[in-house]
Amino acid sequence: MGGDGGPDAILAGASIARRRHPKVRFLLHGDEKILTPLLGKYRALAKRSEVRHAPGLIRMEEKPSQALRRGRNSSMWNAVEAVAKGEANVAVSAGNTGALMAISMFRLGVIEGISRPAIAVIWPTIRGQSIVLDVGANAGSDAKQLVDFAVMGEAFARAIFGIGRPTVGLLNIGEEEMKGIEPVKLAARILRASKLPIEFYGFVEGDDISTGTVDVVVTDGFTGNVALKTAEGTAKMVLYYLKSALLRSLLGRLGAIFARGALRTLRRKLDPRNLNGGVFLGLNGVVVKSHGGTDELGFASALDLAIDMGGSDMIQNILADHAGVSAAPEEDAEPGGPNGDPGKAQVAVS
Amino acid sequence: MGGDGGPDAILAGASIARRRHPKVRFLLHGDEKILTPLLGKYRALAKRSEVRHAPGLIRMEEKPSQALRRGRNSSMWNAVEAVAKGEANVAVSAGNTGALMAISMFRLGVIEGISRPAIAVIWPTIRGQSIVLDVGANAGSDAKQLVDFAVMGEAFARAIFGIGRPTVGLLNIGEEEMKGIEPVKLAARILRASKLPIEFYGFVEGDDISTGTVDVVVTDGFTGNVALKTAEGTAKMVLYYLKSALLRSLLGRLGAIFARGALRTLRRKLDPRNLNGGVFLGLNGVVVKSHGGTDELGFASALDLAIDMGGSDMIQNILADHAGVSAAPEEDAEPGGPNGDPGKAQVAVS
Repeated sequence: MGGDGGPDAILAGASIARRRHPKVRFLLHGDEKILTPLLGKYRALAKRSEVRHAPGLIRMEEKPSQALRRGRNSSMWNAVEAVAKGEANVAVSAGNTGALMAISMFRLGVIEGISRPAIAVIWPTIRGQSIVLDVGANAGSDAKQLVDFAVMGEAFARAIFGIGRPTVGLLNIGEEEMKGIEPVKLAARILRASKLPIEFYGFVEGDDISTGTVDVVVTDGFTGNVALKTAEGTAKMVLYYLKSALLRSLLGRLGAIFARGALRTLRRKLDPRNLNGGVFLGLNGVVVKSHGGTDELGFASALDLAIDMGGSDMIQNILADHAGVSAAPEEDAEPGGPNGDPGKAQVAVS
Repeated sequence: MGGDGGPDAILAGASIARRRHPKVRFLLHGDEKILTPLLGKYRALAKRSEVRHAPGLIRMEEKPSQALRRGRNSSMWNAVEAVAKGEANVAVSAGNTGALMAISMFRLGVIEGISRPAIAVIWPTIRGQSIVLDVGANAGSDAKQLVDFAVMGEAFARAIFGIGRPTVGLLNIGEEEMKGIEPVKLAARILRASKLPIEFYGFVEGDDISTGTVDVVVTDGFTGNVALKTAEGTAKMVLYYLKSALLRSLLGRLGAIFARGALRTLRRKLDPRNLNGGVFLGLNGVVVKSHGGTDELGFASALDLAIDMGGSDMIQNILADHAGVSAAPEEDAEPGGPNGDPGKAQVAVS
């Protein structure tokens, strides 16, 4: 029910994801009076879906505390609940981020030993793709949290990229040891001294993210969110400059006609809809947040990501990697979900 | 003497700047055994220049405290000294940033009432150009410092863009009042309540920088530095993607040939050398830091910026704008310098 496009965009996105992952089943949470007739438009999706009535709705401007108090009958709550009960491998929502995080923390619980969950995104680079976290679950982080993010990001990279030993860098304003803010310097000392199964690269700077210097870039939620949005804004600006430059002359226009295919490739490569989806890491269950303003293509990407994650053993990896963590998740939170095959994942959609 | 290109790049850059600003005079600080013969290659520049012998050198890896202790005979120290003595309107250096800031603070003094200096850069936007500060003078800032940055950034915008009442935004991770880290939230409350001659817009997000939503974006030195380098990395990545896409097909290559002029315009527009130069704000004198890795074109841009600033009344504006500030700079620090005409500025080069 969440997101600017509402159930129309969500179901259209699920229909695209269904074609790509024919074995996946969807639990669609929301107002059945809206969802059931809408689902009639997507016959193949309907066959792989189950509508779970949830009359309530969490509005975009609602505070996390309000969502926790009043949100129990909402589509968002019930989608997360399906993961907590082990009915779904992963929950996906395009709704209110703060509310989704609060409900996810409350119902799934934070992995023992992890101080705070984080939101991770996949970032396009010159080398391919990297992971950046936290991009906004927290505003500011201490050294312990940054170290936890390194563990979580590394487990995420192994799950999604299939790399054995991803490299991890700490985002800073210089590569020298003395540079930067205290939590970052302290986290580097802890990571260097630790026996975590992490290939710790050291400090990286803002331009290293797009260069792809490391597989995982660790930062606090404030800096990460600013970096992510700054990059989105810059990419948009460069495309705008490119368009203006091409339109200014006849030769430019002619060139643009010949290079139409190449320019389309570029736009597709930079289309934020293709890498839509922030993964909540550090919980006893996987939750993916789709951008609220995206359309069906963007939501389908978030579902792709969720399906890839849904069957992975990422949470077990976080548990195993994190020193001094007892591997005992809450009884009703089954990290692996009903099965371990990503192609067959069961997805709860809010 | 500073920068990766050494005196060659510096003098070549000064020669370019001399052609653009024929009335400007240069005080060239450094080893005269190197500078004097080199200057022989630039006859027109030599006529407008005076070599001031300074045998010492501050290395790139030197700590600010070391530079303060041992740097008195260095080219950097003497260039800043020329501003402090009122012999030059502005000092420009491509050397060690931390050392330059430390020496500048020591010799010029921080403007009374201002808690910390900041480094401001000009940022290309879709609308034109904006100012972003701090991009790395400090690692983390409290609310009072952010408010000071707003005052300084606004005075800089008036000086460099000639706008009467620039808009100022605080960089945050959401536009709602409750979002973000404490210093940012508190700074917003102070700016809203203040009688400063500032058009305070409120919070802006990372993508607002390139959109040009406000004339001045205020942030702490850690976040600002990460944002700046992330943007540089993103622009590079997009250009790399564009090149790859064009080269992949015959039609793309053909298009690129026709659109050669347009692509050159794009590259020029995104060339970091064209907007090279961070301005140290908050001191009783103007100091411009050129990127150390730039070439003569980049250094010429830093000199352009310095010459524009050298004759401005920015420091008086900061003094006037900052509530409760007594307008009494140190005796030997004359903010306006020898004269008030930017075209005729005297520039000390280190």
